[in-house]
Amino acid sequence: MEYETPLFFHVMQYANAADRDVIDMVSGNPDWEPPEALREGLREYADLDPDRFQYPPSEGLRELREEIAARRGVDADQVVVTNGAGEANYLAMARALERDRGSELLLTDPVYPYYPGKTTLLDGSQRFVATDEEGRLDPEAVRAAASAETAAIVVNTPNNPTGAVYPEETMRELVAVAEDHDAILVSDEVYDHYDLSGRFASALAVDSPNRIVTNAFSKSMAITGVRVGYAIFPPELVADAKRRHMLVNVATTRPGQYAVLNALRETGPDYYERNRERLRERVETFTDALDAAGAEYTTPRGSFYVMARFDGYPGTLENVERLIDEAGVAGMPGEAFGDSRSDWLRFALVTPRVEEAAERLATYFE
Amino acid sequence: MEYETPLFFHVMQYANAADRDVIDMVSGNPDWEPPEALREGLREYADLDPDRFQYPPSEGLRELREEIAARRGVDADQVVVTNGAGEANYLAMARALERDRGSELLLTDPVYPYYPGKTTLLDGSQRFVATDEEGRLDPEAVRAAASAETAAIVVNTPNNPTGAVYPEETMRELVAVAEDHDAILVSDEVYDHYDLSGRFASALAVDSPNRIVTNAFSKSMAITGVRVGYAIFPPELVADAKRRHMLVNVATTRPGQYAVLNALRETGPDYYERNRERLRERVETFTDALDAAGAEYTTPRGSFYVMARFDGYPGTLENVERLIDEAGVAGMPGEAFGDSRSDWLRFALVTPRVEEAAERLATYFE
Repeated sequence: MEYETPLFFHVMQYANAADRDVIDMVSGNPDWEPPEALREGLREYADLDPDRFQYPPSEGLRELREEIAARRGVDADQVVVTNGAGEANYLAMARALERDRGSELLLTDPVYPYYPGKTTLLDGSQRFVATDEEGRLDPEAVRAAASAETAAIVVNTPNNPTGAVYPEETMRELVAVAEDHDAILVSDEVYDHYDLSGRFASALAVDSPNRIVTNAFSKSMAITGVRVGYAIFPPELVADAKRRHMLVNVATTRPGQYAVLNALRETGPDYYERNRERLRERVETFTDALDAAGAEYTTPRGSFYVMARFDGYPGTLENVERLIDEAGVAGMPGEAFGDSRSDWLRFALVTPRVEEAAERLATYFE
Repeated sequence: MEYETPLFFHVMQYANAADRDVIDMVSGNPDWEPPEALREGLREYADLDPDRFQYPPSEGLRELREEIAARRGVDADQVVVTNGAGEANYLAMARALERDRGSELLLTDPVYPYYPGKTTLLDGSQRFVATDEEGRLDPEAVRAAASAETAAIVVNTPNNPTGAVYPEETMRELVAVAEDHDAILVSDEVYDHYDLSGRFASALAVDSPNRIVTNAFSKSMAITGVRVGYAIFPPELVADAKRRHMLVNVATTRPGQYAVLNALRETGPDYYERNRERLRERVETFTDALDAAGAEYTTPRGSFYVMARFDGYPGTLENVERLIDEAGVAGMPGEAFGDSRSDWLRFALVTPRVEEAAERLATYFE
């Protein structure tokens, strides 16, 4: 497993440099439209007075924090607007480690590779709790792994890479484990708008001073490059997180915040439902073709990803590169997400060409 | 001196909440127009295809890195595009401390308060080297303070808060001191376009594996809120800096990068000269009025700031708040920048009302 430099960018570069047509299923970059009000917000911003081009409040534009707070049922003071979920998770994990209640972070296996990378950066250590074949996490396994050394439990629901969605009873139990060890549950919910199961539950459903929720507009509004996310801290943990945010980044990009605020206000539920529906169709199309190819796979309950396994073709970086060159399909090596998935490949459903991709895979592996 | 949370935001909030008209000379927020091509870049971006709203390369858009590299005479691989100079300095200081060649950072007194704040965040310690009354830094004083414990020397030229501009011989000597102790010179040159002396010299003028240069478009393009900056690393130090950037922020905001690239390409030297000329006029107006008021002050050679001293009125936060309430002028307390300036106040020339401000001060202190 590669903790230090996530492999995403490497694989994307390899695919871009390939000498043939490659269907890109590597990244978590949506290929669909951002809300029209997001574009409109950027246009409006471009014409504002010079003072609106200057530093926003470090913790984020007040109106944006209030809008987020109202939607999430928290106090605006608990919200820090961040440079995407990336910074939100960094702040959350740093805050958990700074409490001096242990230096170990419990992560899942498979895991989103940025989490162990951030842990190392912050001088913490990793301990992994295996999920089952479908990506489900048993809170009792987390409890068994927790100790006085546990600073935080970091989860991602809906999950990248497994597509699992943790039900409310799981979230409740995870918060309870965190409380029992005076640790922090960090719940990264960046795919919350892509719950296909109807069973998604935010950690915010469980009131507790021991949980931090991170999120971003990167996936929900198809704007991974704009870099606007947020973290919701318990009141007693927020001041130190704001301080770190200020010292590292000063503030989050203001045109992005302005445009996101406009999009939040002006975009109805149909936008999000349309994106979920498209994803549902792609899941069906891709898994049908995988069935036809005789591949093993997990059907995602949420997020963008299908994990698939082809006989005698382990999920190594070398095999991913071979698949790019020889089949014209780019995925991610399963080994990037943990030893438990080293036989698997991850395919992101962020291309209209999912059927063609599955057919290429079927032809290649037949 | 307040290391942890820079006081800027506190004073700005106090001034905004005041019950009277206050002339804001607190922040380093330019009050002049961004380049028209910056606005145009945002408008263009708003209409791009969805794929242009997704993650840019983590280290920055290639075209932007190449444009910066060409202007600064370095290789594009050495450039990391950051969330403003704030992140650039964070990455530079982290990189210097990670080399395990000591954990002490040499800073100037007076100092830009984010530097000691970042040092503490990164588990380093501070050692201060006094500048003279005009803010000039004697490299021999830096050499005398340097030791095997020195990880970095962090300077800012043109300087905030003193307005000093370090000449080339100073930069050359500072690089030599860094080399002699296997330390890093971190040179923050965010005010480079506001050199009023004609004597500014970038640390890039001295080729060395021991210097990192940080900068941003925040001041030069009057866009502190857009959050686009950069750091230039020696080839052997850049990979680890890129990794930290990726793990903390993933990438820098793409609409901002796009707009800055457009502005770099389309904006002629007259834009920058006009801004310098405005600043020259404000310096003259403000210092003339201070003369008339019998105040002591330093005439800036660059950057936006005038330090002034009024008899019997030390530069405490309390006195700054009193000045807001009773004179209607908001400055920064000198004590925020170091003990050596605790008798002084800092006024930022980022308002067209500098003459009125100076008159208010004259009336108040007469």
